[in-house]
Amino acid sequence: MDFRSDNVAGAAPAILDAVIAANHGTATSYGADPWSARVEVLLAEIFERKVRAFPVATGTAANALALATMTPAYGAILCHEEAHIHLDECGAPEMFTGGAKLVPLPGGDGRIGPDALRDMLERTLNGDSHRVQPAALSLTQATEAGTCYHPAEIAALAEIVRGRGMKLHMDGSRFANAAAHLGVAPAEITWRAGIDVLSFGATKNGALGAEAVVFFDPGLAETFEFRRKRAGQLFSKMRFVSAQLEAYLAQGRWLSFARHANAMAARLADGLQRLPRVALLHPVEANEVFVRLPLDVVSGLLEAGFRFAEWTDAGPGAIRLVAAFNTDPGHVEAFIAAAAKLTSAAA
Amino acid sequence: MDFRSDNVAGAAPAILDAVIAANHGTATSYGADPWSARVEVLLAEIFERKVRAFPVATGTAANALALATMTPAYGAILCHEEAHIHLDECGAPEMFTGGAKLVPLPGGDGRIGPDALRDMLERTLNGDSHRVQPAALSLTQATEAGTCYHPAEIAALAEIVRGRGMKLHMDGSRFANAAAHLGVAPAEITWRAGIDVLSFGATKNGALGAEAVVFFDPGLAETFEFRRKRAGQLFSKMRFVSAQLEAYLAQGRWLSFARHANAMAARLADGLQRLPRVALLHPVEANEVFVRLPLDVVSGLLEAGFRFAEWTDAGPGAIRLVAAFNTDPGHVEAFIAAAAKLTSAAA
Amino acid sequence: MDFRSDNVAGAAPAILDAVIAANHGTATSYGADPWSARVEVLLAEIFERKVRAFPVATGTAANALALATMTPAYGAILCHEEAHIHLDECGAPEMFTGGAKLVPLPGGDGRIGPDALRDMLERTLNGDSHRVQPAALSLTQATEAGTCYHPAEIAALAEIVRGRGMKLHMDGSRFANAAAHLGVAPAEITWRAGIDVLSFGATKNGALGAEAVVFFDPGLAETFEFRRKRAGQLFSKMRFVSAQLEAYLAQGRWLSFARHANAMAARLADGLQRLPRVALLHPVEANEVFVRLPLDVVSGLLEAGFRFAEWTDAGPGAIRLVAAFNTDPGHVEAFIAAAAKLTSAAA
Amino acid sequence: MDFRSDNVAGAAPAILDAVIAANHGTATSYGADPWSARVEVLLAEIFERKVRAFPVATGTAANALALATMTPAYGAILCHEEAHIHLDECGAPEMFTGGAKLVPLPGGDGRIGPDALRDMLERTLNGDSHRVQPAALSLTQATEAGTCYHPAEIAALAEIVRGRGMKLHMDGSRFANAAAHLGVAPAEITWRAGIDVLSFGATKNGALGAEAVVFFDPGLAETFEFRRKRAGQLFSKMRFVSAQLEAYLAQGRWLSFARHANAMAARLADGLQRLPRVALLHPVEANEVFVRLPLDVVSGLLEAGFRFAEWTDAGPGAIRLVAAFNTDPGHVEAFIAAAAKLTSAAA
Repeated sequence: MDFRSDNVAGAAPAILDAVIAANHGTATSYGADPWSARVEVLLAEIFERKVRAFPVATGTAANALALATMTPAYGAILCHEEAHIHLDECGAPEMFTGGAKLVPLPGGDGRIGPDALRDMLERTLNGDSHRVQPAALSLTQATEAGTCYHPAEIAALAEIVRGRGMKLHMDGSRFANAAAHLGVAPAEITWRAGIDVLSFGATKNGALGAEAVVFFDPGLAETFEFRRKRAGQLFSKMRFVSAQLEAYLAQGRWLSFARHANAMAARLADGLQRLPRVALLHPVEANEVFVRLPLDVVSGLLEAGFRFAEWTDAGPGAIRLVAAFNTDPGHVEAFIAAAAKLTSAAA
Repeated sequence: MDFRSDNVAGAAPAILDAVIAANHGTATSYGADPWSARVEVLLAEIFERKVRAFPVATGTAANALALATMTPAYGAILCHEEAHIHLDECGAPEMFTGGAKLVPLPGGDGRIGPDALRDMLERTLNGDSHRVQPAALSLTQATEAGTCYHPAEIAALAEIVRGRGMKLHMDGSRFANAAAHLGVAPAEITWRAGIDVLSFGATKNGALGAEAVVFFDPGLAETFEFRRKRAGQLFSKMRFVSAQLEAYLAQGRWLSFARHANAMAARLADGLQRLPRVALLHPVEANEVFVRLPLDVVSGLLEAGFRFAEWTDAGPGAIRLVAAFNTDPGHVEAFIAAAAKLTSAAA
Repeated sequence: MDFRSDNVAGAAPAILDAVIAANHGTATSYGADPWSARVEVLLAEIFERKVRAFPVATGTAANALALATMTPAYGAILCHEEAHIHLDECGAPEMFTGGAKLVPLPGGDGRIGPDALRDMLERTLNGDSHRVQPAALSLTQATEAGTCYHPAEIAALAEIVRGRGMKLHMDGSRFANAAAHLGVAPAEITWRAGIDVLSFGATKNGALGAEAVVFFDPGLAETFEFRRKRAGQLFSKMRFVSAQLEAYLAQGRWLSFARHANAMAARLADGLQRLPRVALLHPVEANEVFVRLPLDVVSGLLEAGFRFAEWTDAGPGAIRLVAAFNTDPGHVEAFIAAAAKLTSAAA
Repeated sequence: MDFRSDNVAGAAPAILDAVIAANHGTATSYGADPWSARVEVLLAEIFERKVRAFPVATGTAANALALATMTPAYGAILCHEEAHIHLDECGAPEMFTGGAKLVPLPGGDGRIGPDALRDMLERTLNGDSHRVQPAALSLTQATEAGTCYHPAEIAALAEIVRGRGMKLHMDGSRFANAAAHLGVAPAEITWRAGIDVLSFGATKNGALGAEAVVFFDPGLAETFEFRRKRAGQLFSKMRFVSAQLEAYLAQGRWLSFARHANAMAARLADGLQRLPRVALLHPVEANEVFVRLPLDVVSGLLEAGFRFAEWTDAGPGAIRLVAAFNTDPGHVEAFIAAAAKLTSAAA
C-alpha cells in the first residue's frame, strides 16, 4: 500500500493499449506522424481554441523548455518559494534559459498572493538595469501544497504581470487534478485567465512518460521546435509518446483519472482529520494529503508496511500521501483504519 | 516499403512485451527500481567489466550529456565533419556543455583519420590559451557513412588524444550494427580501445525510445546523476524505459536485431551494385546503403511507392536506404527488382 | 558635495601617475608583462603566502569569474540575500557559471549567520539529487550594510561549509575598507579563516578600473586563464590595468586610502547620530553610512545640493552616504552642519 | 624594434591626456556621464546617422556581446575560418550567446566569398529543424589576413543573408585601418552596405583599453544594456574608458593613427618584396604584413633583436609584422635593411 507519489503508480491500461496499437507499420519520425497531429486537435477541443502543442519526455523538460521561450538570459522568473522549478529540478530552468534567475515568492498553502508579487516587482525587480529583468511568472496548478488556484486568483496575478510585459506560465504536472477539483472549463484556468504556456502533465496521471507543452500564445511557440530538438527532447519514434497523450486526452480520461485520485485523497483527508492529534497541513483539493501525525503513529504506519513520504521540511511528524489514478479504495480504508488504531492506542 | 530510416520502424515485440510486463504494481520512481539495476548488470556482462549506465530518452540527449561530463565550457570536442553531434542536433552539445566548441575533422567514408586529428592538435588547438582547449574526441560507431571503426583504428586515435589528457566518446546510436558487423567483443571497440563513455543506442534497433549512457571511466560518471536531472532526462516512471533496455540487452537481442538489419543492407548493396550506372558511395558495413542511381531511376522508384531519403549533400542521384531490425526481405528483393527494371529500361 | 558612491570619485593621483609611467616602449600583451608579475609579488607579500592573481575590468567580472571556478553548472552558491552578486549583477554569476543557482540567506547588518547557513544546508540543500548541489559560499567584506566580518565569524562559517566539500569566496570590492577597520593582517580574514578566492577591489578605492581575482587555492586557479579570456576580460594592453594595481598595493596605499574613507564615514555617522530624529540603520564600520532622516531633512539636503542615494529598500527617509579615498573633510562637516540645521529647524 | 602586434604598443599621448583630464571632480557612474554621451555624438557624426554605442573593455567582449544580440542559442554565426571570433577568443561567442555555433567558411586572403556563403546556406544550414538556424554573418574588417572588404563586396554578402532574416556583424578591431586604406566614408562599409552592428576597435590603434559596440539597428541595441552589465563589462568609472574613445574619435585621430600604421606596413611590404626569396602571403592593405622568408633570414632577424610573430599556420618561414599608430619609420628601414643584408648574404 504505497502512497509515496503518483509516479510510483504504473500506466493506465487504456494508455498502454494505445502504445501497443501504435506499433503498426512504419511512421514518419520526429513528430510528423498522425498521432502527434491528433494530440493537437484534442487539446484544441479541450481548451476551446487553436493551440500549438509539443510532446516531451518529462515534467522538468516541459517546464524548462516552456520557460526558455519566455525569458531572455538576463530575465527573472518569479515563482512560489516551494515551486518544483525552483526547488526540485536541479537547476533545469537555469540551464534551458541560459542562466535566468528564479525568484521565489512566499505564499500560504502553496499559492502566490498578489501582494508578494506586487511588492517584489515594485521594490526589488523594478527594471533597474543592474538587476535581472522580470520576464515571467510561473504558477503551479495544482500547487505544491495540493491546493488549486481559482480563475479569479490567476486573473488577478495575470493583471499585475501583464502591465509589465511579462509572460505567464503554468506548471500543470497535476493540471488534471486541479481541473477536476475546480470543475471549471480548462480554458477558465488557463488562457482566459491569462496563461500563455501550460506544461500539461500526463505521467503522474496514468501515462508511461509523456507531457505536453501547450502554447496559447502562438508567438512563443515559434522557437520551440528548435529548442526541443536542441534539448534532446525530440523523440525519433514520437508516435509512442503521442499515442499516450492521445489516449489520455480522448474520452475525458485525463479528468476521470484525476477525479478518482482526488476522491481517494479526499477520503484519506476526511478519515484522518477526524482522528485525535492529527492535523491537516493544507486544505486537500487535489490528490495530495499533507498531514501531521504523532511520531509514534508515523513509525507504526511504516512498520505496518504503509509507504509514504516523510515531509521533514514541515517539521516532525509531517507526512505526504499521494493518490493516483488507480489507487485502490481498500488501501485507503486500510490506511485510515491503521492510523485510527495507532492514534487511539497511543492516546 | 519504407527505407527512409531505422527510426520509421516500430518497436520489437519482445521489447514492447517487456514494457507491458513492467506495468505491474508500484515501483520506486526516478530510477531506483529493479529494471534499472538489471540494465547495469546486463551491460557489465556484455562489456566484461563493471560499468555505470544511465537511461535517457533520445540519442541527442545521450550524446550531449555524455560530452558534458568530458569537457569544460572552454573546451573543444573534435569529431568528424559529418558527425550527428555537429550537424544534426541543433546545437545540443553546445547547450549541455555550456558552450564548448565542436571542431569538425575531415575523413573518408565517415571515419576520422589519425593524420587529420594530429594535425588539428598540433597546428591549431595546441593549447594556446586564446583558443578553446581540446577536451574530447567523439567517434561515431557505426559512422554516418555506414562504415565501422576497427579496434586498431580506435586505439590509434585514442593514443593521440590520451597524451593530451583528452577523453574519448563514442556515439553508438548504431553501436549494435557495428558490433554485429565487426564480430568482435564489445569491449574491443570500446574501453579496451580507449573509449571512456559510450552512447549506447536502442531506439533505432527496436526500442520505443531508450538509450543508455555507459561509463567505463567511473570518475566521469560522478556528476551524471545531477546533469541528467537538470536536463529533464530523469524519467519518474523509469521502469518503462529500463524495461526496454533490459529486453534489448537480454538474450543477445541487440545483436540479433542488428545482424538482421545489416544482412538486409548487405543484400540491398549486393543487388544494387550489380546494376548498370549504379555506384555505392561507401562500403556497406552496417545497416545503411548510400548509393548513386540515375536520376530517372530515383524518380521511378519514388513513383513506384518506395520510400527513401534523397541524399542531396552527396550530389544528384544519391540516396540513402536504411534497413531495420524488422525489415522484410521481400521488400528488399522488391526494391532490387524495381531498380533492376528501371536501370535496364533506361539503358 | 557628492556622497552617492565611492565610484563617483575619480582616480588617485598616484595610480594615474603609474598609468602614465607605464606608457613607455612596447610590452608583451595579454598579461605577460612585468607590471602584472609585480602585482602577484605584492599580493604575496600582503597575504604572507604565494598566491595566483589575475586582473580583470570590473567587480562583477571578478566575482562571476571567481565563482565560475568554484561550482559546476548544477551547483548552488549561497550568499546573503542583499549580496551584490545576487541583487546587482544582472545575473552575471548565473552567466559565468553556466546556470548555477544563487541561494539567498537572511542575516542582520548584512552578515550571514551560522544558523541560517546550517539550516539551509541541512533542510533544503542537503544533497538530494533533484536539487542543486551546494558548491560555494560567498561572503561580502565589507558587507552590503557597511559592516565587517571578524576572523572568527568567517572561520565559523568556513567550518560549516568545509565538511561538505564547498568552497569559500569573498567579494572584496571594499576589502581594503574592511581590513582597515578590523586592523588585522589580510591573511586573518582570508585564507587563514578559510577563504579560497578573493575578489580584491581597487576601483572603488582610487583606481580607474582594476580588480584582482586572488587565488589562495592554487587548484582553483588552473582554469582561470581560459575562463578570463573567454569572458572578454583579458586585456591586450594589460600593463595599463596592472600598473594601477601595482601602485594601489605598493606602499600600503590601498590601506591608507581606505583608512581615510572609513574615517570620513565614521565622522559622518558620529555627527549625524547626535541629531534628533536621526537613526543609523547599521553600525558604521567601513566607508558607508546608512541612516534614516526625517523626510523633510532628506528633501532639504537634496535642495541644498548634497548628493546621496535614497535607500528606499529600507523604507522612507533612509539614505546611504559613501565616503571615498579622497572625500573632502570639509564636505563631511558641511553635510553634518546642514543636517543639524535642518533637523533643529524641523523640530 | 618590435613588430609583434599593434597591441604591444603603448597609448597615444592625446588619448592618455584625455584620461588625465577626465580625472576631475565626481561623475555619475556606470556610463551616465558626459564623456559617454559625447562618444555617441562623435560616432553619429562619423557614421552620418544616429547610432547607439556602448563602450566595453576588450575586442573579444565587443564581438561576443554584439553577436549575443543577433542570434538565439540555437543559431549559427557564419564567419571566415580564420576569424578571431572562431579561432582566438577561447569560445567567448559561444559563452555570450548561450551556445550558438560558429560556422567557418573558407575564402582567400581572409575574405569570405559569396559562393562559399551561399553554398553553406543552401546545402547545409538550410533551415532543417535538426540543425542550428543561420542567424548572423560576421565579417572582419580589416581581415585576419590584413586585407579589406570593399563596399560592394560587403553589400553582395549582405544581400545573400538579408533574404534569410540574418543579421550582419562587423568585427572592426582594425576598422580604422580598413577605413584609412579604402578611403571611403565609414558609412559606406558599414550600415549603407548592410552592417547592423560594428565592433569598433580603439585599443590596437592607440587607446589604453577601449572598444565601442556601435548599433546601426536600434532594435538590436535594446537588450545591450542588460547584456553588458551581466557580462561584467559595465565600468563603474566609465568616464575613463569613454574619455579614451572621445579623444580617439575627435579630430580624426582614429584615421590619422591608422594612416600612419598602414603607411609603415606598406613600406615594409614594399621593401621586403623586392628582396630575393621573399614572398608576400597576402596583399598588404592595412597594417599587417604576412611574408615568407628563408628560414635562415628569420633566424638572423631574431638574433639581431627584431621581434615579430612566427606564423607557423602558414608554413615554415612565414612571419607576421604589424605596424602601430606610433611605429618608428627608422625601425621599418632598419628591418628592411637587415632583411636585405641577410637575404643577399644567404644567396
